[in-house]
Amino acid sequence: MTELTQTLNKTMGLLKGLDQKDPLAIGQELHRFAGELYPICRSITGNGIRQTLVMIQKRIPLQTFEVPTGTAVFDWTVPKEWNIRDAYIKGPGGKKIVDFQKCNLHVLNYSTPVRATMPLSALKPHLFTIPEKPDWIPYRTSYYKEDWGFCLSHNQMLALQDGEYEVCIDSTLDQGHLTYGEYFLPGRSNDEVLISCHACHPSLANDNLSGLTVATFLAQLLSEKDCHYSYRFLFLPGTIGPITWLARNRDTARSIRHGLVLTCIGDKGQFHYKKSRQGNAEIDRIVSHLLRHLWESSEILEFSPYGYDERQYCSPGFNLPVGCLMRSVWGTFPEYHTSADDLNFIQPKQLAESLSLCAAIVDVLEQNRRYRNLNPFCEPQLGRRNLYRSTGGGAIEAEINARLWVLNLSDGEHSLLDIAERSGHSFSLINEAAQILREGGLLEIVPETGKETTRPQEESKAAHSCRD
Amino acid sequence: MTELTQTLNKTMGLLKGLDQKDPLAIGQELHRFAGELYPICRSITGNGIRQTLVMIQKRIPLQTFEVPTGTAVFDWTVPKEWNIRDAYIKGPGGKKIVDFQKCNLHVLNYSTPVRATMPLSALKPHLFTIPEKPDWIPYRTSYYKEDWGFCLSHNQMLALQDGEYEVCIDSTLDQGHLTYGEYFLPGRSNDEVLISCHACHPSLANDNLSGLTVATFLAQLLSEKDCHYSYRFLFLPGTIGPITWLARNRDTARSIRHGLVLTCIGDKGQFHYKKSRQGNAEIDRIVSHLLRHLWESSEILEFSPYGYDERQYCSPGFNLPVGCLMRSVWGTFPEYHTSADDLNFIQPKQLAESLSLCAAIVDVLEQNRRYRNLNPFCEPQLGRRNLYRSTGGGAIEAEINARLWVLNLSDGEHSLLDIAERSGHSFSLINEAAQILREGGLLEIVPETGKETTRPQEESKAAHSCRD
Amino acid sequence: MTELTQTLNKTMGLLKGLDQKDPLAIGQELHRFAGELYPICRSITGNGIRQTLVMIQKRIPLQTFEVPTGTAVFDWTVPKEWNIRDAYIKGPGGKKIVDFQKCNLHVLNYSTPVRATMPLSALKPHLFTIPEKPDWIPYRTSYYKEDWGFCLSHNQMLALQDGEYEVCIDSTLDQGHLTYGEYFLPGRSNDEVLISCHACHPSLANDNLSGLTVATFLAQLLSEKDCHYSYRFLFLPGTIGPITWLARNRDTARSIRHGLVLTCIGDKGQFHYKKSRQGNAEIDRIVSHLLRHLWESSEILEFSPYGYDERQYCSPGFNLPVGCLMRSVWGTFPEYHTSADDLNFIQPKQLAESLSLCAAIVDVLEQNRRYRNLNPFCEPQLGRRNLYRSTGGGAIEAEINARLWVLNLSDGEHSLLDIAERSGHSFSLINEAAQILREGGLLEIVPETGKETTRPQEESKAAHSCRD
Repeated sequence: MTELTQTLNKTMGLLKGLDQKDPLAIGQELHRFAGELYPICRSITGNGIRQTLVMIQKRIPLQTFEVPTGTAVFDWTVPKEWNIRDAYIKGPGGKKIVDFQKCNLHVLNYSTPVRATMPLSALKPHLFTIPEKPDWIPYRTSYYKEDWGFCLSHNQMLALQDGEYEVCIDSTLDQGHLTYGEYFLPGRSNDEVLISCHACHPSLANDNLSGLTVATFLAQLLSEKDCHYSYRFLFLPGTIGPITWLARNRDTARSIRHGLVLTCIGDKGQFHYKKSRQGNAEIDRIVSHLLRHLWESSEILEFSPYGYDERQYCSPGFNLPVGCLMRSVWGTFPEYHTSADDLNFIQPKQLAESLSLCAAIVDVLEQNRRYRNLNPFCEPQLGRRNLYRSTGGGAIEAEINARLWVLNLSDGEHSLLDIAERSGHSFSLINEAAQILREGGLLEIVPETGKETTRPQEESKAAHSCRD
Repeated sequence: MTELTQTLNKTMGLLKGLDQKDPLAIGQELHRFAGELYPICRSITGNGIRQTLVMIQKRIPLQTFEVPTGTAVFDWTVPKEWNIRDAYIKGPGGKKIVDFQKCNLHVLNYSTPVRATMPLSALKPHLFTIPEKPDWIPYRTSYYKEDWGFCLSHNQMLALQDGEYEVCIDSTLDQGHLTYGEYFLPGRSNDEVLISCHACHPSLANDNLSGLTVATFLAQLLSEKDCHYSYRFLFLPGTIGPITWLARNRDTARSIRHGLVLTCIGDKGQFHYKKSRQGNAEIDRIVSHLLRHLWESSEILEFSPYGYDERQYCSPGFNLPVGCLMRSVWGTFPEYHTSADDLNFIQPKQLAESLSLCAAIVDVLEQNRRYRNLNPFCEPQLGRRNLYRSTGGGAIEAEINARLWVLNLSDGEHSLLDIAERSGHSFSLINEAAQILREGGLLEIVPETGKETTRPQEESKAAHSCRD
Repeated sequence: MTELTQTLNKTMGLLKGLDQKDPLAIGQELHRFAGELYPICRSITGNGIRQTLVMIQKRIPLQTFEVPTGTAVFDWTVPKEWNIRDAYIKGPGGKKIVDFQKCNLHVLNYSTPVRATMPLSALKPHLFTIPEKPDWIPYRTSYYKEDWGFCLSHNQMLALQDGEYEVCIDSTLDQGHLTYGEYFLPGRSNDEVLISCHACHPSLANDNLSGLTVATFLAQLLSEKDCHYSYRFLFLPGTIGPITWLARNRDTARSIRHGLVLTCIGDKGQFHYKKSRQGNAEIDRIVSHLLRHLWESSEILEFSPYGYDERQYCSPGFNLPVGCLMRSVWGTFPEYHTSADDLNFIQPKQLAESLSLCAAIVDVLEQNRRYRNLNPFCEPQLGRRNLYRSTGGGAIEAEINARLWVLNLSDGEHSLLDIAERSGHSFSLINEAAQILREGGLLEIVPETGKETTRPQEESKAAHSCRD
């Protein structure tokens, strides 16, 4: 990992704050933050998500939005708000045998209120277990169909004796609001990068406290920089959240040039990146390039319309270039949507790596420009500029080779990523070569035209430039 | 095979007549029809092909055309008409040792008349055998060079004793006509689908009674439907037949949007499809898709200018999207052009499968439309329409997944075949999803523009619509 | 090899002079010429390259150019001219232990003059050896940084005793000229084919006497023909040579339609072809096609901006379709840039093969035209023209198949190379078919438009036509 970290650090011209820190310490800080968020009983509406956003606000100046129940959002309607104070099952002996206070997964999320006494046979249809994993509690929801229920381990259910059970779900399902958080970081350009993660799952760590914490830390790092792009971070309930945001921000959505959904990025699995519907968007090429160069094994998945919130961003009316970054793919690991997706399932090292990868992605986004060779006829004489041979060594040779590639392909058409892909060199090596050649007066940057608009000077932030 | 048949049946929305029958019974009926046609001594002109067309007319209202000898057709000329009553060789003992009445392959097809007595040494240059298959009689022709000859088994030839042989070929080669049959089924559109098969081979079953019978039955099935496309079936002599038809129908040929040459589709070999010269025509993609999804093994062959009548349809002046469907490829199996290509070499099961595949091809052609998602912004809420989750099970999951794909790619640009190919689902699953979504008011059909013209209402047939 | 030679000979419609000779004899003649050039101490300027060009002038009417020191050529400046009369090191005993007269590699190429006596310790920093190959003398240069030095075997250096050494380099580095040779063969068209090779290396055989000799002989062969293209041969110092030529011939460079850099083509390695920056230029496709069809093993390398003089021709301002033909790739074989790259390292057989390949490339360039089928509707009746079936045999079958391909794809769009690639046949078979069909009145040549201009008749040469 040392080598990887070094390579990563090298690429992070922008994220110097991260460069200078101990990756393990960052990982532990990420994990600690996940630990603070873990106990909260979140759902797609209600106080759980509100409380979560408040805790994120301690780190980044998140703006929160409350959208009333009943609001029409495209083909959907904002549902009633759900809140819960307590829930339990008391056995025939009067003892609490299932207790929401011990684990919020015990309640079928969005359960309607219930207070009743019933025989085991009447209770059983309301109990959910995982026979294949008899010690784990499943996570189940019923957002759009009113119902109530309890989730418990299969072994616990098998041990239930006949008799009368007292059932209590002290919840409310009423007119209220859907809550989401948004953090907008203006850059020099109006073109936007979207980072989106769902914040609706209760005590589940990988899905998606991992996404929430990494997104929060990434936002913190970016907030210290003066960037080319504007960045927009969204923390919202799954499905209904992005639908609501998109319905309220149709114009803004048109400025999104690149985007990532972050989910399940804290476990020990290798990275997986699911491409956007466009399939060859710049974000798709960037993440593929970095995974290929920085990790020994990773997997690029073709787009499919089933998944997390990229489903909405990639719907045909929007068709935004938004991919989904994961470690293990949701739905494919046994711990998914069970009590085993706990704080031990995510690890500091993996969280830190995910943050580093996100930082590297941002770096490439910020640095991927087109240049023009100012001496396009034959090679410029690098030797007299001290940019050619040195006393040898493999690494330096690659650096010189990278300079030749940048000069050869910088005809105003090829981006640095194009050059990296054609040459087989890493983006960071190519970018380094471009900066040296530019400093040497051999390259000029090609102004971007058409696709981006520039934000008026006064709005942009001071500090160090990401790009210059 | 049960599974295959089920899958096939599923796809055959149009060909309900076929759906409801027992495949083995259909196969036996096909084989029986081949058996009726088998004894006739066909050639590229003459009474054999006339008699064949009359027997096909008992099943479909085929129109026949007679083109006079000497008619110029592009670079060719319609040849003299050939007919034969009898032919034999009598040995030194006066006994018939080769007898046309027993097998019409015994005569070199298009032999000029002959009555002579000659020693074995003079006869031998006129005898054709297959040394590698000493019990089989070869099939040989001499259409464009006047000659006479006999075909016999190699063993029989080896057994010939020296002596005088009496040779008789009671044939005529005179001014006459070239005969072909055409069956045109008007659809709602003037755009045409061509099904072409050569009808000039004498007692050879796979090449091409298999093509003749399957084409005839397909025409019967289609005649009961109201189709989008117009269908044109041609039964004609090889090479000179399509050249003659194309020369007489240059304008009509411009309406052919898709086409298939059917040959050698009754034996036990796996399916082979040879692509059109265009290489990525809709017919090429459809047949490739179906073979990949419906058969465990099959092979797609690139276009080459050598072959059967696709040679003419795919000549550069026409460049029609016409491929060639085969089981074993002509010229590659030992029975090809020998007496071993008999009624045992083709089987009811294989004939029925070939008919089913043709039916499935027609179904995809008829159903492959583009749709537009009427809720393109974010996903529509399938749950409240009862189109999303059900109580589980793999098959249903695939159906829902297919719905998501159809909604996601139905932007008016992608056809259902495009969606099937990108999603990896079968066309039938994608089409089913599209129909359900359309019934649910979530999709509309995109009107086809430009490439097709619509036939005036009164010309089209009533009955049930293929497409609606 | 006999088969290869036969195939090659077949393709060489133009180069009949080569066809009729014994390949080994040609190889020996090439090797003899290399042997004559071998002893000369060449450098990027000076009398060594002048003397080399004079010897080439005995075979082809090369024009030489002298460009004064100090001339600005794009980002570079023509350097001072270097000449050397003698150089040696005398040991403590007064005996010459390193002697330029025995091997000109002993002197660091471009060494400044030196006459001095010094202890071993002072001499050592000026000595270059190859520790891994202790018996070989390395080849080193210092063109653009003034320095002096000696190259010797590692074993010889290890044997040096302490003591005083007398050092003499009797060289001059003064105002003078850069010399290069150019041979222009006008064709019927102003469109040009460039053959370029560097002529600056001293006693090194593969790099690049192999290129010089093959280019010279190719020019000789072409000078006897009347060609479609104009051919331009350049013999120049590496890097600064093509930069100088391009700076002085910017307009002419625009006429270069195809080009090859020839280097390291005399050793026993398999052929390697490095594609041009364009990557799919006609020259790239032609060389790839020929290597695939004519040699059992060879390798096509993607373009990279590091290499020999294709670096300059493929700089983005020119982006000429110039590839680089090699046997072993420079820099990858141990003998590269050492005294082991001597006359034994190149062989008559390999030199002759390289010349044959170059001839075959020229043949395809000259013959690769587009034709139009004059009977595009259906196939023409080849049989009545005696162009169809013959008495059989595999080779003839392929010839007929090639005719069908040419007829099918000759729609005015596909070149013969396109047809060869799609059909899988060799270019020579396809070209042969085209010529037969053309003679039969079935094809016409498509006039080339736009991309080429025709040279006024009187300028072109008489003799036999390459193309007609």
